[in-house]
Amino acid sequence: MNFPSKLIENAVNEISRLPGIGKKTALRLVLHLLKQNVPVTEELSNALLSLRKEIKYCKKCHNVSDTDICNICSGIRRDKSIICVVEDIPDVLAIENTAQYTGLYHVLGGVISPIQGIGPDELKIESLIKRIEDSRTEDKIEEVILALPATMEGDTTSFFITRKLKELNIKVSTIARGIPIGGELEYTDEVTLGRSILTRVNYSID
Amino acid sequence: MNFPSKLIENAVNEISRLPGIGKKTALRLVLHLLKQNVPVTEELSNALLSLRKEIKYCKKCHNVSDTDICNICSGIRRDKSIICVVEDIPDVLAIENTAQYTGLYHVLGGVISPIQGIGPDELKIESLIKRIEDSRTEDKIEEVILALPATMEGDTTSFFITRKLKELNIKVSTIARGIPIGGELEYTDEVTLGRSILTRVNYSID
Repeated sequence: MNFPSKLIENAVNEISRLPGIGKKTALRLVLHLLKQNVPVTEELSNALLSLRKEIKYCKKCHNVSDTDICNICSGIRRDKSIICVVEDIPDVLAIENTAQYTGLYHVLGGVISPIQGIGPDELKIESLIKRIEDSRTEDKIEEVILALPATMEGDTTSFFITRKLKELNIKVSTIARGIPIGGELEYTDEVTLGRSILTRVNYSID
Repeated sequence: MNFPSKLIENAVNEISRLPGIGKKTALRLVLHLLKQNVPVTEELSNALLSLRKEIKYCKKCHNVSDTDICNICSGIRRDKSIICVVEDIPDVLAIENTAQYTGLYHVLGGVISPIQGIGPDELKIESLIKRIEDSRTEDKIEEVILALPATMEGDTTSFFITRKLKELNIKVSTIARGIPIGGELEYTDEVTLGRSILTRVNYSID
């Protein structure tokens, strides 16, 4: 594509480096910004810059935060005896949106993946162990929920963490896998369907 | 959606003001930027800001440009006797990409739309007339091609411009409407198909 202006070309190139945005979409966004008043672009530009430069990570759970300790870790209504271990920040948001969980989180920052060169030391696993050990004094952590992806990498990470936690004598659980609510048996993959039968739960209508 | 950080919330809100980008996509982009080094965000932020603040519009054709007179208007290989009138900047890019046109352009900045309160005075129509009048001395403009959208607003604008140009005794043409190349008759709308029969052209195999 030939651009009539270096400024446009530059902006299109920068925007199209974002995931899922091609040159055509980038150009559409650029032309949209050109039609708006200058402050619209200024606010967007500043929001991105201050996000990237001022963002902090919670020192306890490694979630993004505006403060040293995040709202969840310092929340007075949170159940401090449970930690839910997740791969990354969007997972925290997803679980928070369910409004079904009141415990704390621990963001690993990835999963073990030998192919991508990510070993246990690249993840916040040591920090999880330390957090549980330290908790013995004040708020005691009694359960760790592993909410990692149902992939080989996720399973490997779950296995690794479980083995590490064995010495600490703590309850370890994992989120349920099965047919999604509203999902039809007919269209569910065989692995999920097979496992959902093996891991069936008691059904009562009391 | 609840965000763990005001900075993230702010960035997501700003990004999701762009057309076609919702909160979920905006969050994905924000988390992507957080995983990159700081310069990636800085370059994006600066590119947007300098685009919006430093962009110029060509004084002749009103296309975007880095200089007072754009590359097309000042190009020595361009045919300065033809002007193609388009609604907006993307149309120039689209026609340039065909590599079938070597004349000049004139960007109206919209089409006449009483519903949206856009009259002829909001558009660069006077500037087109003046451009043609001025051309009588140096490079004479001999033809105006109307390449406006095939909508009621586009047709109104074409009609308005044609009437204005009548006094100047200049050739006025419009781009061909018809079945797109590769398009099937069966799936073409009746108006296009009907018009393509009425405006049929001579077919010769010489």
